[in-house]
Amino acid sequence: MTDPRHNLRDIYPPTGPEIIAKSWQTEAAMRMLMNNLHPDVAENPHELVVYGGIGRAARTWQDFDRIVAALRDLDGDETLLVQSGKPVGIFRTHADAPRVLIANSNLVPHWATWDHFNELDRKGLAMYGQMTAGSWIYIGTQGIVQGTYETFAEAGRQHYGGDLTGKWILTGGLGGMGGAQPLAAVFAGACCLAVECNPDSIDFRLRTKYLDEKTDSLDEALAMIDRWTAAGEAKSVGLLGNAADVFPELVRRMNAGGPRPDIVTDQTSAHDPVNGYLPQGWSIAQWKAGRESDPKAVEKAARASMKTHVAAMVDFWNAGVPTLDYGNNIRQVALEEGFENAFAFPGFVPAYIRPLFCRGVGPFRWCALSGDPEDIYRTDAKMKELFPDDAHLHQWLDMARDRIAFQGLPARICWIGLGDRHKAGLAFNDMVRSGELKAPVVIGRDHLDSGSVASPNRETEAMKDGSDAVSDWPLLNALLNTASGATWVSLHHGGGVGMGFSQHSGMVICCDGTAEADARLARVLWNDPATGVMRHADAGYEIARDCAREHGLRLPGIL
Amino acid sequence: MTDPRHNLRDIYPPTGPEIIAKSWQTEAAMRMLMNNLHPDVAENPHELVVYGGIGRAARTWQDFDRIVAALRDLDGDETLLVQSGKPVGIFRTHADAPRVLIANSNLVPHWATWDHFNELDRKGLAMYGQMTAGSWIYIGTQGIVQGTYETFAEAGRQHYGGDLTGKWILTGGLGGMGGAQPLAAVFAGACCLAVECNPDSIDFRLRTKYLDEKTDSLDEALAMIDRWTAAGEAKSVGLLGNAADVFPELVRRMNAGGPRPDIVTDQTSAHDPVNGYLPQGWSIAQWKAGRESDPKAVEKAARASMKTHVAAMVDFWNAGVPTLDYGNNIRQVALEEGFENAFAFPGFVPAYIRPLFCRGVGPFRWCALSGDPEDIYRTDAKMKELFPDDAHLHQWLDMARDRIAFQGLPARICWIGLGDRHKAGLAFNDMVRSGELKAPVVIGRDHLDSGSVASPNRETEAMKDGSDAVSDWPLLNALLNTASGATWVSLHHGGGVGMGFSQHSGMVICCDGTAEADARLARVLWNDPATGVMRHADAGYEIARDCAREHGLRLPGIL
Ligand SMILES: NC(=O)c1ccc[n+]([C@@H]2O[C@H](COP(=O)([O-])OP(=O)(O)OC[C@H]3O[C@@H](n4cnc5c(N)ncnc54)[C@H](O)[C@@H]3O)[C@@H](O)[C@H]2O)c1
Ligand SMILES: NC(=O)c1ccc[n+]([C@@H]2O[C@H](COP(=O)([O-])OP(=O)(O)OC[C@H]3O[C@@H](n4cnc5c(N)ncnc54)[C@H](O)[C@@H]3O)[C@@H](O)[C@H]2O)c1
Repeated sequence: MTDPRHNLRDIYPPTGPEIIAKSWQTEAAMRMLMNNLHPDVAENPHELVVYGGIGRAARTWQDFDRIVAALRDLDGDETLLVQSGKPVGIFRTHADAPRVLIANSNLVPHWATWDHFNELDRKGLAMYGQMTAGSWIYIGTQGIVQGTYETFAEAGRQHYGGDLTGKWILTGGLGGMGGAQPLAAVFAGACCLAVECNPDSIDFRLRTKYLDEKTDSLDEALAMIDRWTAAGEAKSVGLLGNAADVFPELVRRMNAGGPRPDIVTDQTSAHDPVNGYLPQGWSIAQWKAGRESDPKAVEKAARASMKTHVAAMVDFWNAGVPTLDYGNNIRQVALEEGFENAFAFPGFVPAYIRPLFCRGVGPFRWCALSGDPEDIYRTDAKMKELFPDDAHLHQWLDMARDRIAFQGLPARICWIGLGDRHKAGLAFNDMVRSGELKAPVVIGRDHLDSGSVASPNRETEAMKDGSDAVSDWPLLNALLNTASGATWVSLHHGGGVGMGFSQHSGMVICCDGTAEADARLARVLWNDPATGVMRHADAGYEIARDCAREHGLRLPGIL
Repeated sequence: MTDPRHNLRDIYPPTGPEIIAKSWQTEAAMRMLMNNLHPDVAENPHELVVYGGIGRAARTWQDFDRIVAALRDLDGDETLLVQSGKPVGIFRTHADAPRVLIANSNLVPHWATWDHFNELDRKGLAMYGQMTAGSWIYIGTQGIVQGTYETFAEAGRQHYGGDLTGKWILTGGLGGMGGAQPLAAVFAGACCLAVECNPDSIDFRLRTKYLDEKTDSLDEALAMIDRWTAAGEAKSVGLLGNAADVFPELVRRMNAGGPRPDIVTDQTSAHDPVNGYLPQGWSIAQWKAGRESDPKAVEKAARASMKTHVAAMVDFWNAGVPTLDYGNNIRQVALEEGFENAFAFPGFVPAYIRPLFCRGVGPFRWCALSGDPEDIYRTDAKMKELFPDDAHLHQWLDMARDRIAFQGLPARICWIGLGDRHKAGLAFNDMVRSGELKAPVVIGRDHLDSGSVASPNRETEAMKDGSDAVSDWPLLNALLNTASGATWVSLHHGGGVGMGFSQHSGMVICCDGTAEADARLARVLWNDPATGVMRHADAGYEIARDCAREHGLRLPGIL
């Protein structure tokens, strides 16, 4: 093997109730590392790439093997240190300390650029951990459906009294992430009209049932939307076309008394003007050729089209239609192209995610180490039992079971917050103890949680007090999770938005059915979301302050 | 009180064996916070400034009061979170977890500049923690004497068989830090000729006995040096003059067969060309006036003089005299002025400190919470008993007792490493238990320790493998110290070299005489220096690899 990052092995985590490590805590870390590289989970497992560009689970295959060996051998009072995907030390700690501590891709700020990272990477000194790739809690595409669903549902709560029946969402882009939009919209109870220029993207989403219908006629698409909304049916249609043509046309029709969308957004790949956005008037073939022969010309044309596209979104916004940027940087491009009013409508985080973050609500998830889907279905039922009045949650659980296939070890994601997370954790631990589940489960979350991320261009954009760039918060979150007894804790740099632009932390905790795990779960699953409530209360959000008071948080300098 | 950072109160830590907090762990944190603001310790205590420009112990006076109140009330299974000098949360953890977790001045890299920091600071959202200011383990000037002593002593070991008797050190600058040089040289057994342009700086050091003699004649200074070195006496002289004049003149004399220094360095404030370095041919009065009226002209003249100054240092180096940059950036200025060979001689860290870091040796320190100097003298004696063959250590302890006055709570610093630190900690804890000491002691270290800092312009300059900017290491250090049970743990950004240029972590642990503390001390004071050995072993230093093998460290991806 000459390339330390290439290997044809297929990795599957062990399943079932027998362990090969010395305890479930270390077995859990080992299975989850392997699950991140499962052929159904990872985007490019032979290169150790899990997702998000070059987000890896281990630095090299040799490091992967050494991590596995270390975890198999680790005692219950020892801790393994992983530095940018490489196992660097095993130290004596104690039973309530984490079994693994991870730091990935962290660089001293002045050197925190892709250039410097790439230089280190070439020397074998670095690994990009993304968020959940290097911290071993990625669970496939279920996460993006759920995040989009929560965003649409929160928009529904804010603008339509929590009921999106008979409403429709206009958007663009059905790519890797954006393809989750029609399914998420339907989950949230709304119809969806998604404009996509690439027929293959549309067909792929039809095949996987993320999308219900397709057409290349705007009139036909609008007729479907009209029929479905009138009937109170939630369904979706993919319209083959260019969003920069369709959006302005829909503005014209709306202004002329035609149909009016209830929510407008976009997930074309506007962040990459050379490769991600089809310019108006170009065919896909022309576009592909142009990217090779004259990328500058493509970029210029794409940027001009984005300006038109954003201008239409601002028209919707000015007409009173809730409109949001989905983190693809399209407003910034329009601004640079001279459209001064580009930032008239908000980003999705300040508009819809932050109110959730204020209550410690974020991408909570768990995974059945048994490998048995039944274990997840039992936890689904337990969640309904624990939170009998949360219709939104019940709906998500039903639809997720129905329409989202498991990838690798069966897992479930659902956004819950402070006061609920530890209840779920304790209940699951009890189910492991009683044998109701066939093996332990792990509970974790994405790094883009309420208290665990500083990312001024996305998750902490436009904080009320201007503290967007303060990264004390994710560091405190990691230290507190370590002090509270999470099973593994991670600190990363550059996830989501790239080198220099974010710092964030992760935690995973194992429900092994023991009483000791009860104590740890009660602490970790309370403290972790509580740091998010604290961070938002400090920034001045009333929702967070109320939530802190309601839960009796002790925030001396804040409340 | 309108300025939240100004207050005329004088803060003195409580002393003696009675506590006002609920345990010694929290009492310790409270006393050390207060000690950082003790009138004899802090540079500007009424503004909460401890040292190093604007390095503070708490964000505002109200935050100081709230931290004290929180610490007094904190239970033995609770943890206080401090965010840039403000107490933000109290959480349930467990007895073996830290009582305080601190994150100061951390910023997402792209925004990690003084400009952005100052903007936040003006809004009341930030505090500069320096290294030990915001982490409550600053002990006054003893630290700088010891650091300089270790550097000179290591140079003596490398170049002169460990014996500096009859040798002399040429340097410039007797300011706040540089003034420690003559005393440190004498401690190391060498004579010192220090060129200083400001008569007040010379007189101050004479008064406090850091300096033995003064003169304004080079001939007279050299005659003293000649006399002392011949007699094997270690003494120092301050020469009133401009280093940029004197250094080249000494090169000329050396080349003409005159006296030849044995070590050359410099601590003029070359890092600040406007305010820190007197240009050749200028009087002090002219310089002061010029800084107001025409700072650009001062800078230009100062930079030209620095070039001359560095050229002389390179001449010494080329003549075979060990020459070192002491972290004042003077080589960089000379390079910018067109002197290509400016970096011919090394910085002090790669040359002399790194071999110590490779063995986990760094600025270890402890402080007697009783307030009684006798407690420190007893620990001094214990250190000699524990390490009977370490002549270097014995010499330091004797001289420090003799010539360095305590500031605030009595404290001692001495550089020891992996394998020794935990022995000292356990012995001290035993002395507390037996009543030999009047009250508990705390043990800590500077952030610029072996495994706890990433600072590519200073502590991690020119790492063997090019990993200077990788900051996974200090983050892992903080996480591991948290997992091991230090009493408080901190993560800072920007200490020493300013915003954007460093990330580093601190730890302090309390010896309260209990068996539980024994277990924590054994873990923390082993693991903490071991992370330094690990980091340097990973970078390829043989000394570190040997040290790791000798101590049986388990470094799976490294050894
Ligand atoms: N959390 C977040 O902030 C978040 C989450 C998801 C996606 N995003 C952003 O959303 C964007 C989409 O992500 P993705 O992974 O789906 O990207 P992708 O490249 O896989 O998909 C983009 C899709 O847009 C289509 N498209 C391009 N130009 C078009 C045009 N003019 N009209 C209609 N369709 C067009 C492409 O054919 C493609 O199918 C990215 O910019 C991503 O960064 C952000
Ligand atoms: N760990 C480290 O890397 C480290 C440690 C200590 C100091 N330093 C650096 O060393 C320098 C000195 O620190 P300080 O706190 O003593 O600064 P300071 O400003 O207090 O003292 C500088 C002294 O140099 C004198 N001086 C200025 N120009 C001179 C000249 N041309 N000839 C002779 N004397 C001259 C000044 O009168 C003053 O007394 C700083 O640049 C500091 O950053 C670095």
